[in-house]
Amino acid sequence: MPLYLAMDFGGTKLACGLTESANGMIHSHIRRASPSNAIDSMLLMLAMAREAIGGRDALSISGVGISFGGPVDERRERARLSHHVPGWEDYPLVDEVVRALGLPTVMDNDANLQCLGEWRYGAGQGTKDMLYVNVGTGIGGGLILGGQLRRGAHGLAGEVGHTVVDPNGPVCTCGKRGCVESLAAGPAIARSAREFLASRPQDGSWLVADVGGDPSKITAEAVFRCAAEGDSLCRLVVARAARYLGIGIANAAALVDPELIVVGGGVAKAGPLLFIPLVGAAKEQAAPLDPEMLSIVPGSLLDDANILGAVALAEQEFGG
Amino acid sequence: MPLYLAMDFGGTKLACGLTESANGMIHSHIRRASPSNAIDSMLLMLAMAREAIGGRDALSISGVGISFGGPVDERRERARLSHHVPGWEDYPLVDEVVRALGLPTVMDNDANLQCLGEWRYGAGQGTKDMLYVNVGTGIGGGLILGGQLRRGAHGLAGEVGHTVVDPNGPVCTCGKRGCVESLAAGPAIARSAREFLASRPQDGSWLVADVGGDPSKITAEAVFRCAAEGDSLCRLVVARAARYLGIGIANAAALVDPELIVVGGGVAKAGPLLFIPLVGAAKEQAAPLDPEMLSIVPGSLLDDANILGAVALAEQEFGG
Repeated sequence: MPLYLAMDFGGTKLACGLTESANGMIHSHIRRASPSNAIDSMLLMLAMAREAIGGRDALSISGVGISFGGPVDERRERARLSHHVPGWEDYPLVDEVVRALGLPTVMDNDANLQCLGEWRYGAGQGTKDMLYVNVGTGIGGGLILGGQLRRGAHGLAGEVGHTVVDPNGPVCTCGKRGCVESLAAGPAIARSAREFLASRPQDGSWLVADVGGDPSKITAEAVFRCAAEGDSLCRLVVARAARYLGIGIANAAALVDPELIVVGGGVAKAGPLLFIPLVGAAKEQAAPLDPEMLSIVPGSLLDDANILGAVALAEQEFGG
Repeated sequence: MPLYLAMDFGGTKLACGLTESANGMIHSHIRRASPSNAIDSMLLMLAMAREAIGGRDALSISGVGISFGGPVDERRERARLSHHVPGWEDYPLVDEVVRALGLPTVMDNDANLQCLGEWRYGAGQGTKDMLYVNVGTGIGGGLILGGQLRRGAHGLAGEVGHTVVDPNGPVCTCGKRGCVESLAAGPAIARSAREFLASRPQDGSWLVADVGGDPSKITAEAVFRCAAEGDSLCRLVVARAARYLGIGIANAAALVDPELIVVGGGVAKAGPLLFIPLVGAAKEQAAPLDPEMLSIVPGSLLDDANILGAVALAEQEFGG
């Protein structure tokens, strides 16, 4: 039973797990809140790794896979930067882990690894061609084509979140207007609710009450909570986000015609409330594919997608 | 020097050529206007094929490649239908050619073969990953990934033309709203010019004169002609089409991150007039890719892309 160590450097949390690659079973699963800078995050992660390894002989561990929550360099040896934690600029993450643990180590960004994780251990098992979309604070994605993670000519493939679906839409974090991320990620859902509320204050009493009377406290979670309870303003906001996400997914399907589309991530955890209108919108926009050719399922790994993707990557690299 | 016979069943013309696969040199190049139904087209094409073969021994020809101007079935043996010529529904094109000529035969749709042709003999030579976009009466496309034509799980990959870039845009031939094709193909350019003209008749005297005073006679060609002569209304119309096409191309690049993007087809023949603003718009929308990562070039095969793609396909299938 080959064992791999998986590390997940997220924007708000660190996770580490010693994992059996054959079945994806995670032993010694350790999670901590992320320190506010790169050096402390690194030191904490190495301590977590040693704790996860415990009394085992390092020789019993086949390698380390790292999921990094931000762009990495083309050779996948360095973190380029984190949008959430300072100090990661050009950080030689792989080298540092090799030096500290003496184990062969590989890295990729979190969206690619969530994709690889869902494909190897989750909702995408057994497919050859899969599109993965992660909906959370941002919208990331990944592509498996012919049983291989497609990284692209510059390591930047799979960016469903930064495809434009409304050139007159809001300004995105990337600087463009009307990217899927600017219309359907968590912050976009919260902003959209605040805008609806400003134009139709009489419809928003439920949501306003939910956030203690302070619209600036509206989050995507609050919108989903109120939508689940039947609030019509919040349902409208969710339907709007689902529609844009559906267009983005249908566009991606028109380009690569995947066998399966897997949607994961924090906002996706809202469940059927987002998922059902999302599938409806994507199928409505499926042409020239027949709607039934669009097979869309929720991710099944939830918070473990990064860890399991990191294991899958390490297994590909260092497995027999 | 292996020789292949290539056939191109287009909506308005038929072409046939005996071609050296090593260098793409087309011998005995024959073109005719397409008859108005499938049976007559087939008979004429077979006569053209026999003329192209001439006195040669059939054994000196390694195979036949067919480019069909419409969707084909998943096994690529039958035409599904032509949008321009009746009678092609479910037509066993490959079998008929095998029976008539006694040569091994393969087929694919024209967009895939234009892509393959540009990659093997044209602007895309030497690349591993290439996106091809064909701008004409419709907007088609194809993808080469890892040196292979990507057909997709249902044979429908590469449909850049039917990605939505403005959900409030005009209705497309596919039934959706705001597809790239509905905003930037030839008919969309003509329609857009008529609309500008209706709202700003004082600006359109040049274009109106060009079409003999009859706005219903406006074509994309007329718009490009007047734009080339400096007409400001036509320049605006071209810039608008280029912008939407640029967004569609940048979206595709965000998803697959290709090494090279090749733009071909009839409308693309308008040259720098369309190409320069198109490249500008695509680079403006490149994020998260750096603009210089978007490498966009015009196709170099022009009207021979279909024939040369058909040869490349036959060579892949039947070559040594």
